[in-house]
This record gives sequence, structure tokens and C-alpha cells, in this order.
Amino acid sequence: MITRGFGRRWAELEPIGRASSGGYRRFAWTAEDTLLREWFAGETAALGMDLTVDRAGNQWAWWGDPDSAPGIVTGSHLDSVPDGGAFDGPLGVVSALAAVEALKAEGFQPGKPLGVVNFVDEEGARFGVACAGSRLITGAMSADRAAGLRDGDGTSIPEAMRSAGQDPRHLGRDDETLHRIGAFVELHVEQGRALATEEYGDAQIGVGTAIWPHGRWRFDFAGEANHAGTTRLADRHDPMLDYASTVLAARTFAGAHEAVATFGKLLVEPNGVNAIPSLVRAWLDARAPSESSVQGVLRDLTAAAQELGATVTEESWTGNTAFDSSLADRLSRVLGGAPLLGTGAGHDAGILATAGVTTGMLFVRNPTGISHSPAEFAEEADCVAGVEALTTVLRELAS
Amino acid sequence: MITRGFGRRWAELEPIGRASSGGYRRFAWTAEDTLLREWFAGETAALGMDLTVDRAGNQWAWWGDPDSAPGIVTGSHLDSVPDGGAFDGPLGVVSALAAVEALKAEGFQPGKPLGVVNFVDEEGARFGVACAGSRLITGAMSADRAAGLRDGDGTSIPEAMRSAGQDPRHLGRDDETLHRIGAFVELHVEQGRALATEEYGDAQIGVGTAIWPHGRWRFDFAGEANHAGTTRLADRHDPMLDYASTVLAARTFAGAHEAVATFGKLLVEPNGVNAIPSLVRAWLDARAPSESSVQGVLRDLTAAAQELGATVTEESWTGNTAFDSSLADRLSRVLGGAPLLGTGAGHDAGILATAGVTTGMLFVRNPTGISHSPAEFAEEADCVAGVEALTTVLRELAS
Repeated sequence: MITRGFGRRWAELEPIGRASSGGYRRFAWTAEDTLLREWFAGETAALGMDLTVDRAGNQWAWWGDPDSAPGIVTGSHLDSVPDGGAFDGPLGVVSALAAVEALKAEGFQPGKPLGVVNFVDEEGARFGVACAGSRLITGAMSADRAAGLRDGDGTSIPEAMRSAGQDPRHLGRDDETLHRIGAFVELHVEQGRALATEEYGDAQIGVGTAIWPHGRWRFDFAGEANHAGTTRLADRHDPMLDYASTVLAARTFAGAHEAVATFGKLLVEPNGVNAIPSLVRAWLDARAPSESSVQGVLRDLTAAAQELGATVTEESWTGNTAFDSSLADRLSRVLGGAPLLGTGAGHDAGILATAGVTTGMLFVRNPTGISHSPAEFAEEADCVAGVEALTTVLRELAS
Repeated sequence: MITRGFGRRWAELEPIGRASSGGYRRFAWTAEDTLLREWFAGETAALGMDLTVDRAGNQWAWWGDPDSAPGIVTGSHLDSVPDGGAFDGPLGVVSALAAVEALKAEGFQPGKPLGVVNFVDEEGARFGVACAGSRLITGAMSADRAAGLRDGDGTSIPEAMRSAGQDPRHLGRDDETLHRIGAFVELHVEQGRALATEEYGDAQIGVGTAIWPHGRWRFDFAGEANHAGTTRLADRHDPMLDYASTVLAARTFAGAHEAVATFGKLLVEPNGVNAIPSLVRAWLDARAPSESSVQGVLRDLTAAAQELGATVTEESWTGNTAFDSSLADRLSRVLGGAPLLGTGAGHDAGILATAGVTTGMLFVRNPTGISHSPAEFAEEADCVAGVEALTTVLRELAS
């Protein structure tokens, strides 16, 4: 029963926004996004739920009157990173729909309104700010800041919304929507492979406790543009060498501080085969279970890079985001002692938790730990276990 | 006399194609290029020279009938790399015009036709192949290959020529033009700072002996795309680390083999701040006075990179290009013992030498060695010395 509804929905989503790479390109306020939103509206209508759209364009489907009492909400997002996998986001939405379907099939009568949300622009792939939908309704991102963002073609969020047939005039904090959320539980594929390790007992399902502290820093290595063929080694000031040393140092310091640190994005000027670069600009992403670990990596790496003449600029910093610990304990208990774990990835659940909403997360085992890649994967049996766990949790919380 | 004509011409060229960075963007078959060609036509007409245009669009201005006997030709190019300097190319053209003017002023009667050339698309900034103009007329690049090249907007060379009012139908080897060149001497700003060192006696002018052997190799480091926040260090296959080690190794091996080696161009996929890359593709430019030195660097670096799982692909290789040694000795002698030196940079002179033309080069001292940059510079006194040297050389060769 559960698997049939899950499998049908999964198959329907599969072709939408799929690139020839096998990965997904589902970006906010595009034709693909519109198709996904229409699909969500159709599915929730078929389940007899009432759809509302908040000031940022997030879709909320309700079983019961959302203004009668604070409700129990689940759901996730349908957008993707460039060439992302099928599970990050959609697994939480499809599992939510399957769980509601299962509760209806068993004749469950919720004691509170029960909601399923499809958050818009969680990945920030188009405008560069992750969790834009939840940030907007909680006020974590102002409407002015959102209006100032541009995608690669110079389009703003209000322009993108209008061209997708949405109304951007009411962008901003949405207290009416927030007041409806008594508790939010987001189910998500794990993006590492902690659950699959012995430490976590190779568990199918885990319960989130926190989003690790994390930040982004820009490292600018300035050099002297010059001809690659005629400039003697002794006369060079080649910033690529300084960058290379810093990449290796970042790995060393991350290991020493039990953190993760990544240089994944790079800009080289002039980026010519026969030109010594004038600039190598690189972005460091660093995260760890504790703030002191991240700051330790950053302190050591900044000192090393500055010694090479680099400048280091903080672009973002988010401290530890704890989910509600009594909710986490309750979820673990009703799920037969599911293991508790923190995560290095950001989620709309983290934005809501920061805004004061009682929030929890369920993670579904990821055997390879691969995410943000076409190779992202979860076993069918684990997805089914995720739907069952979410059904159990909703039954528990909404009784 | 010399300085007045030189200074006026230099000042006229200065604003053409200058970007807000202070560097030049003078690309082949653009509006800037058309302006530069019109300027060249006007200047040579004012000197009483007859202009011809060859099958590739290179401009040749003649003093005397070019078909009466093989002539003595000087000149260079007026196009630039992106954000290039003012000297690379234009110094050779302006010095050629000033030298002809000086010879006319002193009443010199050439015993052979005397030519000044403006080669088209020497830098290859638009279509990716350096020395396109000289390669086409010597047959080093076929018309078919040229027609298959595309610029960043998808425009082909024939299309670009047509939109610049030129006729691409006769692209191809141009023996009529080649037969007119008895000897070619190109004056160029030095692109390193060898002449400014003690080894070369801090000389204003040097005489080229060869273009060093050089090549380009593509290094592909494949990894596993993954989430930067959730993938444990132990589970990562991050190709940025392998690339970084290879950058540092390239510098070590270049030093050991007395070569230069540069990683100046890089492509990262997906190039996201929160994504471990799936691919780092980097291009190595390596050159040295001897072929065995370049091959030594490549052998050692390929072994090191392959051990990390990289694949290495040769994209181009050019062996040593020697200029005519008796001409070089003669130029050095008439210039009072100007020092002889090889260069790591390619030039149209190298293409002509490979095609069997008797060829030489004069280099003007570059105090910083900076080239392909807005900071490229030569002292006015050294430019004047260059014009005097070129005048002396033309008087010697064309008598």
C-alpha cells in the first residue's frame, strides 16, 4: 500500500528536469519548477487536502483547518542543485504524501491540522542563497535582499516569480503561515554515510539533533599576470602555487580539528593557458560538529594563507542549529530507538528551528554517502522504512 | 626626428581598444582591428609605400616594387591578448614605420624592396590559434582548419572576415607573398627580463636566436562529486587535492630541469562552493631552451600525476625553432655586439622561419619582464634605441 503510492509518485517525478547527465536541474521559478508545483497541487488535491501558498510562494497542503490549532507539518523541497540527485528534497515530499495516504487509508482522524509543505528554492542554485523560501517567511532574508539577488542571466527573484505566474508583491515575513506550524518534521535522505557505519549501527532511519556550525570564506590570492613562456621562475609571483599550498593545508587542518573543509569553487584570472594568473579566488566551505573545531580550521588556515599574502573574507557563518531535543528524543523513542545524529548540511528545518519553530528531522540511510550528484541513492527498502517512520511520527504527534 | 614620428604614432594608437582596466582588447576582425588596419594603411600611404593585402588579410606596405627582387621585411602585429599591454606587437609596427621614415629622411635608396607587415591575429585571442595570419599564408594552418575554428560567440574566421569587410574566399597558402620575402626581421618588446639582467649586460637591444621548444598538456583529475558538508574526509575522493600536489610538483620539476612550467588555466566541475568537485581539468604550459628539458619536466610530472589517477593529454608540441644563425650573427655585429638570446614566446617570425624564410628578431629591453598585462612596459630611451637599431639593420640588409 505504502510502496504502491510511493512508487507511482516517484516514477512521475523521475523525468521532470532530468538532464542528459542523469542529474537533475530543477531550479526555482523555471518551467521545471512550475511543472513540479502543479504536480504537488494535483497530488495534495487528490488526497483531499487544501492548498495555500504563502508570501514567498511555498506551497502548504492541509488536512484539517490550519487556523483551528497549531498543526503538525512535514515536507521538504522539489528543487535541485545543478546535476543533483533524485532524492535530496523529493524523498521528503513524496514520503510525506505517502504517509498522509497511509494515515487516511487506516482511518486515522488527526487531532490537529496536518500539513505537507513544498518549500521553494531550498538549494539556492539559481540565486545563490540556500533555503530562500523559508528564509523569506521567517524574515531571515528580507524582501529587499531577495530583490537584490540576480541569477546568471541578471534576472531578479521578483522577475522570476512574475514570469512563473506568481505574485512577488507580498514577499516578506509571513507570521500567519508561521503561526500555523505547531511542529515541523522534515524527512531527508542522509547526505553522508554516518547511518551506514557501525558507529550508528547501520540504521535505516536516524533522528536529527542539529545542523553543524558552518561557514564560507573567500580566499583571494593576488599575483602578477605575466607571460608563461618568458617569465623566469625566479621572477614569478604565481598565485596558483599559494593556492595549491593552501588546499593541501586545509585538508591537514580539517583532519587535525575533526572538521571537514573543501575548496570546491574557484575563479582564475585571466585563466589563459599561456598566462601566469593575476588572481586565484577560491571559496572554502568548512563545517564540524562544534563551533570551536570550525574556528580552529579557519584560524590555522587563515594564518597560513596570510603568510602567503592572501586575504581572507568571511562570506557567511552560521553557528550550531540545535533541533528541539525533547522532540528528537520522542521521535527516537517512537521509532524504536532510532539513532540520533547531527548533520553538516543546511535544511529548511534549520531555518524554521532558528525562527523558534519546534523542529525535528528524520534521515534515511544513504549507503554511499553520495549527494548533490546523479549517483545519489537510497535503497527502496530504506525509503519504505522512511515512509513508515514518518507515518508513525505523524500519528504520534497529530493524535 | 626618430622620436617625433615614433611618439606621434604611439599616441595615436594609445586609445584604440583600451579597456577600463588599462589593458588592451584588440581582437582580430573586430571594429578595433578595422580601425588599426585603417591607421596602418594611412601611415604607410603617408610614407609613400604601396599597400597589398595577402590571402589571409595580412597587410604588406612596400617601398619599391616587391616583385622586382626578394625584399627585406620588418613589422609585427597590432592585435592583443585580453587585457594585454601596449607594446607586444605595436612596438614592432611603430618602430618599423619610424625606421622607414628615418631612412627616407636621410635619403637612403634601398637596393632591394623594403616591406613593413602588419600580421593579423597573432595572439589568437579570439579563435584560439596563435599566429593565424602567418600560419595561413605559410600553410602551417589549412584554410579548412581555420574555417572550423569558432570564437566565443560561435563565429567562424570566414564569417568574422566578411563582417569586417574582408574576403575569406582565398584563404590558404600564399606563395606569391612568401616569394617576396628575402629576409624578415621582427622587432618585439622582450617578454621576459633577460636583457635587463647582468648575464646579458643590461642591454637595451638583443638579437633573437631561437624560439624555445614548448607545448601544452591537459591534465584531467577525476573525482567523486559529493556534498562538502556531509562527506567525511575518509570517504572523499577530492580531485582538488591531487591537482594541488601536481601544481607544486610542476614548480619543483621545472626548477630541476631549468625549464618554466605553468598551470594558468583551470576548469572545475561543478565549481560549487558546497560541492566536492567531480573534475579538475588543468592545462600545463612548459618551455625550456632545450627539448630534453621540457620533456624531462613532462616525464616526471606525468608520472607523478598518473600515480594520483590523472590522465595527461598532449594538446600541442613545437620543437626548437632556430632563426637563421648567420643573419643573427650579422645583426649582432652591426649593432655593436648586441647579445644573442632565445625566447620562450611564439612569434610570426617563428612561423616564417619554420616555413624556410631567412628570419631574425630584435628584442627591446623590458625592465620588469612583465608582458600580456597592462603593466607591460619599456623605457622610452630603449624604444628609441630599438628604432635606431632597426634602422641600422634595414640599411645594412637593403643596401
